[in-house]
Amino acid sequence: MTAARLERAYEGVGIVQRQYLTWTEPLELESGQSLGPLTLTYETYGRLNGEGSNAILLLHALSGDAHAAGRHSPNDRKVGWWDAMVGPGRAFDTDRYFVICSNVLGGCMGSTGPSSRDPRSGQPYGARFPVITIGDMVRAQVRLIDALGIKHLLAVAGGSMGGFQALEWATAYPERVAGSLLLATAARSSPQTIAWNSIGRRSIMRDPRWRGGDYYDHEPPCDGLAIARMIGHVTYLSEQTIERKFGRRLQATTEPAFSLEQEFAVESYLDYQGESFNARFDANSYLYITKAMDYWDLPARYGSLDAAMARVHGRTLLISFDSDWLYPSAESQAIADALTRQHRPVEYAELSSPAGHDAFLTDIDAQQGLIGDFLATLA
Amino acid sequence: MTAARLERAYEGVGIVQRQYLTWTEPLELESGQSLGPLTLTYETYGRLNGEGSNAILLLHALSGDAHAAGRHSPNDRKVGWWDAMVGPGRAFDTDRYFVICSNVLGGCMGSTGPSSRDPRSGQPYGARFPVITIGDMVRAQVRLIDALGIKHLLAVAGGSMGGFQALEWATAYPERVAGSLLLATAARSSPQTIAWNSIGRRSIMRDPRWRGGDYYDHEPPCDGLAIARMIGHVTYLSEQTIERKFGRRLQATTEPAFSLEQEFAVESYLDYQGESFNARFDANSYLYITKAMDYWDLPARYGSLDAAMARVHGRTLLISFDSDWLYPSAESQAIADALTRQHRPVEYAELSSPAGHDAFLTDIDAQQGLIGDFLATLA
Repeated sequence: MTAARLERAYEGVGIVQRQYLTWTEPLELESGQSLGPLTLTYETYGRLNGEGSNAILLLHALSGDAHAAGRHSPNDRKVGWWDAMVGPGRAFDTDRYFVICSNVLGGCMGSTGPSSRDPRSGQPYGARFPVITIGDMVRAQVRLIDALGIKHLLAVAGGSMGGFQALEWATAYPERVAGSLLLATAARSSPQTIAWNSIGRRSIMRDPRWRGGDYYDHEPPCDGLAIARMIGHVTYLSEQTIERKFGRRLQATTEPAFSLEQEFAVESYLDYQGESFNARFDANSYLYITKAMDYWDLPARYGSLDAAMARVHGRTLLISFDSDWLYPSAESQAIADALTRQHRPVEYAELSSPAGHDAFLTDIDAQQGLIGDFLATLA
Repeated sequence: MTAARLERAYEGVGIVQRQYLTWTEPLELESGQSLGPLTLTYETYGRLNGEGSNAILLLHALSGDAHAAGRHSPNDRKVGWWDAMVGPGRAFDTDRYFVICSNVLGGCMGSTGPSSRDPRSGQPYGARFPVITIGDMVRAQVRLIDALGIKHLLAVAGGSMGGFQALEWATAYPERVAGSLLLATAARSSPQTIAWNSIGRRSIMRDPRWRGGDYYDHEPPCDGLAIARMIGHVTYLSEQTIERKFGRRLQATTEPAFSLEQEFAVESYLDYQGESFNARFDANSYLYITKAMDYWDLPARYGSLDAAMARVHGRTLLISFDSDWLYPSAESQAIADALTRQHRPVEYAELSSPAGHDAFLTDIDAQQGLIGDFLATLA
């Protein structure tokens, strides 16, 4: 890599614009209900080539959005959630690939979700929004990919719930996907992840400010959403990371306060996570998206994991992290084994990391090479 | 074991009575505050021998109480929390040992705690109850052991927070303890356990029904306490146990309801745990006891774990469980290693179990022999 190239890589994708598309035709949902009109917010990085053969769809996790890379303005202090991975010379090399990321259906970052206005009433849907599934999220994305004039995706890529969507693409639309990148994910939600999600939902729905979902004209259920987020955060971190980052350090003093209030540094950190999540996320979206995650069960849909994996046409790269106890390596190993039994080309790497489930977002260096090489074999 | 003996063993300790003792002299607390009068509720099983040399103190975990074994009446449907372990022919053999268990200071099962009446006001203490520590709990127990005329304990025994108290006894009163049984425990609360406890406390204290702790004349903060208990319960179980017990089974139907409501069996289980805990436990006690747990840090108290373990006079038996991710084996191993370095007699067994942290309460067979043999070497 030359110095000039390094400089460019450092710059990333630069300034990006949020875009959106709206479809008036209702989307038929897995529940039997239909939803319309339907808007998806998305961003793109790089250029679609003449043959339309270099498109990659990035799929975000529970709390993510369409803003995967770059800045929205020169003064934007925060880059997109996977910025280190997307840009010239990065794993998702925008000199070579056309990268797309959309906010999921049910989300609160521009795509249609429970905070959107129900055209029938003119009021926000709230808890009248239909319950959606990972399949529904992907069916909405199909509209976007069609609208962009893309017949075949070079790759679909995502971690955690993003991996659920990538797996849904690879099994429901196998002829449109050349490669799937599945990071820190699983073919179904385990009962333990359902338990955590369920406690978070209960916390939101028992917050008196939830008001049956109709809180948009009032103070939102901040306490409930904060608890849900704090639970989530502990599950995203490894014990090792919490120990290294915070240990038993007190936040402001050296001696215990002998008070019921928070005083350990790890408590202040969680507090901050809860507060900042409230500033950017809608509690109802949290309910709908976690419910969609809980329903996620690819083996049940097709009879077995092997039957599901037999549907895959393209190549698959799986990455898991040894300290991830929320989506443990065994879940990725099971997918890799099923693909192998079905004679599907698959690479699986378990990376060593102290970062827990968060590693797919934070451990960039270890993943860049694997992902870059995998994409190069597809291109 | 003869058939008659087996029959007796099956019967357990039979009918037991809750007893209590009250001291008017205030107890000086680690915080510098004092608390009095002070009541401890306790139960005893078996008989103290003439030399007073066969007494064993059982120490309960976060949600436990003085009722370790037997029934309170012939119609009592539930036996004590460690009944399978305590009785004629059981590990804590009541034919040989005099077994004592008291509800901790700060508890809500008869001992002085935040739901007790403050003699100065005639009202329940609520959040005016002083913050206590594991050391304070044990200093209260010392009064009980003194009052029972017992100079030396054959053993102190407990799991989880019960192990904290046993370690406190063994290091603060080493000359009074011949043996310590430490099950699924640690010499300090890890930042991850602090995180879980803190989220539970926040959930209680943000429940509007908490009312700053003065809810005793009103509906208690059931939602907050239920969330705290549900979080706890998931941490007590291994992923393997949740998978085996519930899997992704729906509770009442075979098809998803496409609703935000609970529908998976694991959700109904957690719901039940939350509800039933509310029926028997005081939310303020939950705050104070978890805070005492969070402060638990024996290495900090004595400068290092080795310095703490150098204080131990007696023998130590440590048991941990390989699926316990809340109090992982490494915590027990560290204690065992420190005792060994300090030339203190110690046995450590890591038992294989799918039951997670709960194993110390549920995996009786694997522990009976180890504990029974250990006690026999002390006697």
